[in-house]
Amino acid sequence: MENRNFIVQGDICWCKDPQTLETRAGAFLVCAGGKSAGVFSRLPEQYAAFPLLDYSGRLIIPGLVDLHIHAPQFAFRGLGMDLELLEWLETRAFPEEAKYRDLQYARRAYGLLVEHLKKGPNTRLVIFATVHTPATLLLMDLLEESGLVSLTGKVNMDRNSPDILREAGAAASLAETGEWLEACFSRNSGSGYKNTRPILTPRFIPSCSDELMRGLGDLRRKYRLPVQSHLSENKKEIEWVRKLCPESGGYGAAYDGFGLFGAAADAPSAAPVVMAHCVWSDEKEIALMAGQGVFAAHCPQSNTNLSSGIAPVRHFLEAGVPAGLGSDIAGGVHSSIFRAMVDAIQVSKLRRSLLGLDEKALSMEEVFYLGTAGGGAFFERCGMGRAGSFEPGCDFDALVIEDTDIAAPFGLSIRERLERTVYLSEERHITAKYVRGRKISR
Amino acid sequence: MENRNFIVQGDICWCKDPQTLETRAGAFLVCAGGKSAGVFSRLPEQYAAFPLLDYSGRLIIPGLVDLHIHAPQFAFRGLGMDLELLEWLETRAFPEEAKYRDLQYARRAYGLLVEHLKKGPNTRLVIFATVHTPATLLLMDLLEESGLVSLTGKVNMDRNSPDILREAGAAASLAETGEWLEACFSRNSGSGYKNTRPILTPRFIPSCSDELMRGLGDLRRKYRLPVQSHLSENKKEIEWVRKLCPESGGYGAAYDGFGLFGAAADAPSAAPVVMAHCVWSDEKEIALMAGQGVFAAHCPQSNTNLSSGIAPVRHFLEAGVPAGLGSDIAGGVHSSIFRAMVDAIQVSKLRRSLLGLDEKALSMEEVFYLGTAGGGAFFERCGMGRAGSFEPGCDFDALVIEDTDIAAPFGLSIRERLERTVYLSEERHITAKYVRGRKISR
Repeated sequence: MENRNFIVQGDICWCKDPQTLETRAGAFLVCAGGKSAGVFSRLPEQYAAFPLLDYSGRLIIPGLVDLHIHAPQFAFRGLGMDLELLEWLETRAFPEEAKYRDLQYARRAYGLLVEHLKKGPNTRLVIFATVHTPATLLLMDLLEESGLVSLTGKVNMDRNSPDILREAGAAASLAETGEWLEACFSRNSGSGYKNTRPILTPRFIPSCSDELMRGLGDLRRKYRLPVQSHLSENKKEIEWVRKLCPESGGYGAAYDGFGLFGAAADAPSAAPVVMAHCVWSDEKEIALMAGQGVFAAHCPQSNTNLSSGIAPVRHFLEAGVPAGLGSDIAGGVHSSIFRAMVDAIQVSKLRRSLLGLDEKALSMEEVFYLGTAGGGAFFERCGMGRAGSFEPGCDFDALVIEDTDIAAPFGLSIRERLERTVYLSEERHITAKYVRGRKISR
Repeated sequence: MENRNFIVQGDICWCKDPQTLETRAGAFLVCAGGKSAGVFSRLPEQYAAFPLLDYSGRLIIPGLVDLHIHAPQFAFRGLGMDLELLEWLETRAFPEEAKYRDLQYARRAYGLLVEHLKKGPNTRLVIFATVHTPATLLLMDLLEESGLVSLTGKVNMDRNSPDILREAGAAASLAETGEWLEACFSRNSGSGYKNTRPILTPRFIPSCSDELMRGLGDLRRKYRLPVQSHLSENKKEIEWVRKLCPESGGYGAAYDGFGLFGAAADAPSAAPVVMAHCVWSDEKEIALMAGQGVFAAHCPQSNTNLSSGIAPVRHFLEAGVPAGLGSDIAGGVHSSIFRAMVDAIQVSKLRRSLLGLDEKALSMEEVFYLGTAGGGAFFERCGMGRAGSFEPGCDFDALVIEDTDIAAPFGLSIRERLERTVYLSEERHITAKYVRGRKISR
């Protein structure tokens, strides 16, 4: 068992809240038992015996959180991006996902994904796998081995899906999900999974029958499981859901009707729900999300690549919807949440300028918050530790960034170095990566 | 003198025209005297004696062309991106540009820029310097030394500019420009500059008096010099130009009135003009550009970052406006034209989806063309060699890309590897970089 009591010294930077960036030059960040004990300008006596890792001159920031990624789509990220959505799904996404029936293929493909994720800046992820239980468990094993913290879902889909992926009815899908959950729980006990948990994953309403959705709602209540799905990504999809659930009063409300949205009245401590996209969520849906504490995973690059639109993130923040960022591999091409931060700023500017809205663009502080503590709050709500910050008590998820080769002819403040890191850093700039006090890369 | 007769072997890929991507697996690209002699599946007998460089399994593509970059703004790229345009100019751009009066500062800052450019994927650049002649010449010396091919302009600005940068009237600005040109010409002769040329650079109409513009028009005719400037970047600027040049009939037409737009009737062989941005160019301006062969430098990231809008690139292509891509450092943060290619695709999708336009998004082939042969055509028009392609007779500007760590669990075509390189490659993937047959990096 490695030592999870140590100190890192460097130029430390984290978000206290969405507007407040804290910076400390040459300071000490204490890791005690895998958690942050705080950031100090002078080292308190009580930690004098902890080993000190000297990262002087480097930037130390919280690990990044990806709230939405499709693991099987990593294999074809950055391919076929000129296709229209439906053609892309039919020629790229569905045939690729079908391959994960073959465990040998899954081992190769998921192996590449997890190796890639270990080296990048994300430390926690909320993941769609496929409908296949063995491949999903294999992915979870690989993630556990990597040291990353993750919530992974075996996907449910029993209608309006290609034959190669559609499960044989609600009962079969639910039975398979039950088996998958049993396998997860047995791995969760004893010396099994420490960083890896299951999350219920109906693909989205159009591909799940009412019976399946209700059954998943039951499983959610029974096991207090978190849920992930897609919400209001594009206009045609919303119209489709309106036809499929005419009584619901809206897309989010339809999830709610199945017990798969926020905290239901009969389960105030329910595990949380995260919905990807929410591009076209109206004020009513936003209010429902805020009221029930449903997380929005903003995936700006995917929404651009797939011509979905630009999500009203400023409204989420003002209404109090808990929000974070997602790569949405492979609708998005880039796994790094640094890229999602830049994309989020840029599309917020375009939303304002192209649509003529009187709406402030997102600031660097705001997107840095979304990509760290904002997404990290989802893991806290799942009982997997506070994440995405260095406030005392947070899990020690940290990146050490060697940014000196992003050169400038004048001195830079820590805030300026962070802005450059967000915009300009590449994989090679990550010198060390810690998750829960364990060094997992470099 | 190094040997500029050699052969590279690898997976070769280039644009024949905007729609046609050529790919040859395991083929031979012959460099003869610094120029492409063509791509061959079997090596012709006549080149049997040329040394062979084995880049098997790597991608070999033409060097990228940046049609618009502000060299002094590189120092603060990725800083202050949350500021509004005017505040950004006042707190970042203008104070930084003023520093280039100090040659020692210029040496440090331009040194960092040129080192950075050498390692990146761009091989040719059209560059704004500052108003300062010594610093501009220093930059040109550094560029010549680097092996990159470039057109660099000492900036002219004699009105509506901050005191720290404004030149003391049209006569002073023109005299200074004359001195700068003399210095360039003397370096161009004998064993001096081989890859480096001057380009006339009025900042834009609002910051140049009519007298200055007319004088620059005279210099253009006298020396057959190319010209670069800014055009129709944002709506307020266009309104301003309308007030400053009420008789002109438009922004582009105003440049034309000063003899600083396309080929004037009295100078059919005039060197070409490149205009950055053209975000709000209307059909009339687009027709004028097409008719006179004025190049558009599309700078998608800058237009996003500065909330300018999205240029009608599809219209440029349909109307026959010669076009390429620009990083517009530091309105754009990223110098790599790979990033500009991705940005160009993405904003073309947003233009369509957000504005509800019935307009095809740009394809990967189209942006690859714009960022290579499209921009390269500007250099050809300047008599600096055909560039951006491997068609026989083109200058041998080539990148060797080691893309195997952009891993996939299945085989990829060369076209697919190119798409991934455009979206996902980082600096480390460039294994070798040649300009005019000379290896300048790795």
